[in-house]
Amino acid sequence: MVKIRIGSIGLGRLGLTHAENIANKIRHTELAALCDMDEKRLHETADRLGVVNRYTTFEEMIAQKDLDAVVLVSPSGLHTKQIVAALDAGKHVFSEKPLGVTVAECKEAEKAVEDHPEKVFMLGFMRRFDESYQYAHKKVAAGEIGKPVLFRAYSQDPEKFIEGGIAFAAHSGGEFLDMAVHDIDLARWFTGSEPETVYAIGGCYAHPEFGKYHDGDNVSCLMKFRNDTMVYLFAGRTAPHGYNVETEIIGTKGILRIANVPQKNLVEILDNHGVRKECSENFLERFDSAYVREMQEFVDCIIAGRKPEVTVYDGARVLEIAYKCKEAFESGELLKF
Amino acid sequence: MVKIRIGSIGLGRLGLTHAENIANKIRHTELAALCDMDEKRLHETADRLGVVNRYTTFEEMIAQKDLDAVVLVSPSGLHTKQIVAALDAGKHVFSEKPLGVTVAECKEAEKAVEDHPEKVFMLGFMRRFDESYQYAHKKVAAGEIGKPVLFRAYSQDPEKFIEGGIAFAAHSGGEFLDMAVHDIDLARWFTGSEPETVYAIGGCYAHPEFGKYHDGDNVSCLMKFRNDTMVYLFAGRTAPHGYNVETEIIGTKGILRIANVPQKNLVEILDNHGVRKECSENFLERFDSAYVREMQEFVDCIIAGRKPEVTVYDGARVLEIAYKCKEAFESGELLKF
Amino acid sequence: MVKIRIGSIGLGRLGLTHAENIANKIRHTELAALCDMDEKRLHETADRLGVVNRYTTFEEMIAQKDLDAVVLVSPSGLHTKQIVAALDAGKHVFSEKPLGVTVAECKEAEKAVEDHPEKVFMLGFMRRFDESYQYAHKKVAAGEIGKPVLFRAYSQDPEKFIEGGIAFAAHSGGEFLDMAVHDIDLARWFTGSEPETVYAIGGCYAHPEFGKYHDGDNVSCLMKFRNDTMVYLFAGRTAPHGYNVETEIIGTKGILRIANVPQKNLVEILDNHGVRKECSENFLERFDSAYVREMQEFVDCIIAGRKPEVTVYDGARVLEIAYKCKEAFESGELLKF
Amino acid sequence: MVKIRIGSIGLGRLGLTHAENIANKIRHTELAALCDMDEKRLHETADRLGVVNRYTTFEEMIAQKDLDAVVLVSPSGLHTKQIVAALDAGKHVFSEKPLGVTVAECKEAEKAVEDHPEKVFMLGFMRRFDESYQYAHKKVAAGEIGKPVLFRAYSQDPEKFIEGGIAFAAHSGGEFLDMAVHDIDLARWFTGSEPETVYAIGGCYAHPEFGKYHDGDNVSCLMKFRNDTMVYLFAGRTAPHGYNVETEIIGTKGILRIANVPQKNLVEILDNHGVRKECSENFLERFDSAYVREMQEFVDCIIAGRKPEVTVYDGARVLEIAYKCKEAFESGELLKF
Repeated sequence: MVKIRIGSIGLGRLGLTHAENIANKIRHTELAALCDMDEKRLHETADRLGVVNRYTTFEEMIAQKDLDAVVLVSPSGLHTKQIVAALDAGKHVFSEKPLGVTVAECKEAEKAVEDHPEKVFMLGFMRRFDESYQYAHKKVAAGEIGKPVLFRAYSQDPEKFIEGGIAFAAHSGGEFLDMAVHDIDLARWFTGSEPETVYAIGGCYAHPEFGKYHDGDNVSCLMKFRNDTMVYLFAGRTAPHGYNVETEIIGTKGILRIANVPQKNLVEILDNHGVRKECSENFLERFDSAYVREMQEFVDCIIAGRKPEVTVYDGARVLEIAYKCKEAFESGELLKF
Repeated sequence: MVKIRIGSIGLGRLGLTHAENIANKIRHTELAALCDMDEKRLHETADRLGVVNRYTTFEEMIAQKDLDAVVLVSPSGLHTKQIVAALDAGKHVFSEKPLGVTVAECKEAEKAVEDHPEKVFMLGFMRRFDESYQYAHKKVAAGEIGKPVLFRAYSQDPEKFIEGGIAFAAHSGGEFLDMAVHDIDLARWFTGSEPETVYAIGGCYAHPEFGKYHDGDNVSCLMKFRNDTMVYLFAGRTAPHGYNVETEIIGTKGILRIANVPQKNLVEILDNHGVRKECSENFLERFDSAYVREMQEFVDCIIAGRKPEVTVYDGARVLEIAYKCKEAFESGELLKF
Repeated sequence: MVKIRIGSIGLGRLGLTHAENIANKIRHTELAALCDMDEKRLHETADRLGVVNRYTTFEEMIAQKDLDAVVLVSPSGLHTKQIVAALDAGKHVFSEKPLGVTVAECKEAEKAVEDHPEKVFMLGFMRRFDESYQYAHKKVAAGEIGKPVLFRAYSQDPEKFIEGGIAFAAHSGGEFLDMAVHDIDLARWFTGSEPETVYAIGGCYAHPEFGKYHDGDNVSCLMKFRNDTMVYLFAGRTAPHGYNVETEIIGTKGILRIANVPQKNLVEILDNHGVRKECSENFLERFDSAYVREMQEFVDCIIAGRKPEVTVYDGARVLEIAYKCKEAFESGELLKF
Repeated sequence: MVKIRIGSIGLGRLGLTHAENIANKIRHTELAALCDMDEKRLHETADRLGVVNRYTTFEEMIAQKDLDAVVLVSPSGLHTKQIVAALDAGKHVFSEKPLGVTVAECKEAEKAVEDHPEKVFMLGFMRRFDESYQYAHKKVAAGEIGKPVLFRAYSQDPEKFIEGGIAFAAHSGGEFLDMAVHDIDLARWFTGSEPETVYAIGGCYAHPEFGKYHDGDNVSCLMKFRNDTMVYLFAGRTAPHGYNVETEIIGTKGILRIANVPQKNLVEILDNHGVRKECSENFLERFDSAYVREMQEFVDCIIAGRKPEVTVYDGARVLEIAYKCKEAFESGELLKF
């Protein structure tokens, strides 16, 4: 049976997860190359996963003839450039979000994808591949909850990783760009509609360091969508209980809540703290199998000659909306799309 | 031991509950008079509760010399007038919300209360007397969840009572005035702060009838408070699962959720619908004991010569805020306080 | 309206609760006498509740002519004697469990009740008056869960009160008599049937002190009832999370769980321990309103000339079954009823 | 990297799952042969999974020289014979439970394993590979809940699959052998101890058909273990809400509950049935990833030359205990081990 040969760039936490999934858990594929600037990390990982081809520059990797596809888990600022280069080199491309760091970059990425219609391009909106989100989406699409009234989403990083958040603040683009993008994607996916207005507020409730970058440690926004759905997004970096990604869709006939309790597993503990569930620590734990399922979809699309549901336009649109949220937050004004 | 003699006006659902509570469950008190325009209802209730003094007009009732206090559960439009008249007649006053139907009326009520400093005046913000809300408030006040970041509140009436909502729409003043007032009160109580801005949206998702009154069947607003707390309120009339009053306070060190599942009782059912809890049907069921506790506080205040925590100014301020939310909803503008 | 004049004996924790309920929360009644050997406690309580008639012996109290009824919250060993004396003195009687401490005593109590058919006698199986248990019982009686298959009940005292348990061990009669009696009553009430066999085990898992009295700190038994229902009861004294009274009825068409999470209130806490609910501390907190409802039923029965659903025979039968469980536990044998 | 070549026999529901997992999800392995008596099913599956070597008899399959290991998902009555034959043919063996259908067969299997110490033998107690069970086991082993007091386990098949249960009743050996074996394994694993006594009851509450085979549709037993842990097992075939496998370990310092709500995923539904979670339909859904993880462990053991934690003796001991439970159920006697 055919094997899709993939080269992956970036071996940070998420990059490592993708590499391991490709090596061990994804059907019909082979991890055929690895790329990272950090040579020690590169060779250790390649040794462990049995990968022969190792690169420290992306250009070298995409020059490898027998690679069918590349997976980009590099810094955000490099995404667009690498997407374009890889497509031009004849590779299918899976890129982590964001598509680019400016709206102009996104346009560039869109053009590159359009110029290579025979190639599969997919963006890493992994939440769409989580079983619970898929289950909920099916119910919404089937009309089981009636007409959507309110879409509410929380994305919260645990307080215990705040140092990382602060260190990254100068480059993250702020909470709307860094964290809320997944929820913006989900809002569009669940409602099938686009925002018309946005009002955004927030602040530095625990960590004034974010103020330097015109960011907050907790922010939120209220948007009216074209189909009248109300959309309320909240993003925070100080969750006491763990990694909390929670979504609610209130419809006229039913309400769905996804991960209302962001439980680690099915164990309930009864002790001197009461009756409790422990929570997922981070996105890798919470979306463990979603990462496998999205990569499988990428590979299956290549094999079947299908295009993924998530398009380059979704990536561009989400970034554009996130920038508008950021602008609303910084200006304090009600903005229209 | 002293008995506070109370006369109560209005024998609708809530009025009946108050009358029964005073007759049967409140210490140190006696239901000494009843007033309702509907004579049949008046006499039936008075017979059942053993009340001798029966009136069809408020003026007659407050003329009764040996009454210490009155409880107003009359139509909203009569509240201010009756508050003033009762205080002038030397009675302590417990009034259901709202304090009045205009800001001018609220000022009038404030003045009447100020003119009778020896009298107890209390407004029926019963949620403050619910054990769960009190438990949460203590934790917040003790700093257990750190600095408040987000206050989120839902007030949802069940879809099955929608006919009543529609019938009442012309007089209710809209969802912000009719439903969100309790959450506005809670937001001020939990955060100890006041709103600075408000953006409000919503619509008629299932019942276009509300459009005639510039109202929606589901609405929401996002407010920034002076102390930076984000406040998100949602009010709806189409809850499929029952009467849902749910509140969340996200702090920098902890999060509290009150009635996240608006469960009727402690019974969990496992059947062909899955594992489930049934929900409270209406406010009378959900706030059953809160109604008793607030009335007890009113009586205890009279006996002890104390003043209730909820003041006439709270009532006035809440109404003012609700009107601003309504104005924001109708105009689509971002408004400042 | 008629007022039932009640005298109450015993001012321990539960006795105090009953006295306060009668004084403050029960309709159509008056706390007309108090009795306790501890004079200081007696006068303090009587002063606070405004009770004029105060006694240090039960004999004196029942000699009070205008008392309609007595409430017994005295030590278990005195129950039977006081029941008989009070009935003979022409009083209605509400007695805390147990009916007596031997089967012979129960027979005596039965006879006294039979000899005074015009008097109301009621035993304090308060769980039957808890709203959740009543709600579940209605569903079972209406056939909503089909035929009962398994009745499982846990009664657990919190570890933090273990000192009291140890101090009381010499007199408590052991966990089956002291704790499981409520569950034995519930099992009979929910299944409408009687036990045929019992096998009981357990031990001293944390506190060897109970071994001296042939008791354990945690015990359980499996019984087959005549109608084939399996009944599994567990009683423990070392619950880490609080006072846990939990009941499950598995039927052929549905399953009901009562207080699966013995939550204190509707507040959910999200903090560094995860997502959690705090639990009730003790029986007074958990069954707060059940104590009010059962006493109201006692008073209403007197006024209406009705007999309570819980009879003296229930009390006798439950004790007999508890003794058989105890015998099974001590012998290690499978016993038949 | 080395690839373990596996041949799998039996393509029923579970057999198919194993075959697909080996083909698609297990690292370092290759599905190198398939065997099933049903030729249509055999070829369809082999075509789909790309397997060249296809057999209709087990003897032919194990004659295939380049097979390293076999996976047995054949009817229970064939297990022992096939285990012996496969080991003798030099293959590593993974067998679904039970090890055999008689204690004598289990001895035979034990001997075969002992005769081939260089071969990996593993039995399919997949629950030990479920993440929630593993998480709980670690906590228990680390002493986090203190000394085990009660181990309670439910295994319930949904009523909607009852036809299959009835059809299978003549061969299943009854609920203790067919269903409770997993819980017997878990009880030994969690407590590290062995049963001393057993009392078992139950009946045909909804489906008299099981009576013909001296079985019930719902049964339970109470066992005392050597270390004093109380063990209560319940097995039923009429669960209204889905596939319910639920385990509780009460310790002196904490309590763990695994899958107290056997939820399908993280979606909570609020509709006219209340607030609810839907449940797993069957063992394949509930233990989806456990099946992957156990097979991976089998393969990893072969590669590393390790022995699995689950031994042939576990399989033999569990069967012996299940037979004693069955005997206790049929005789109505208290039995000792």
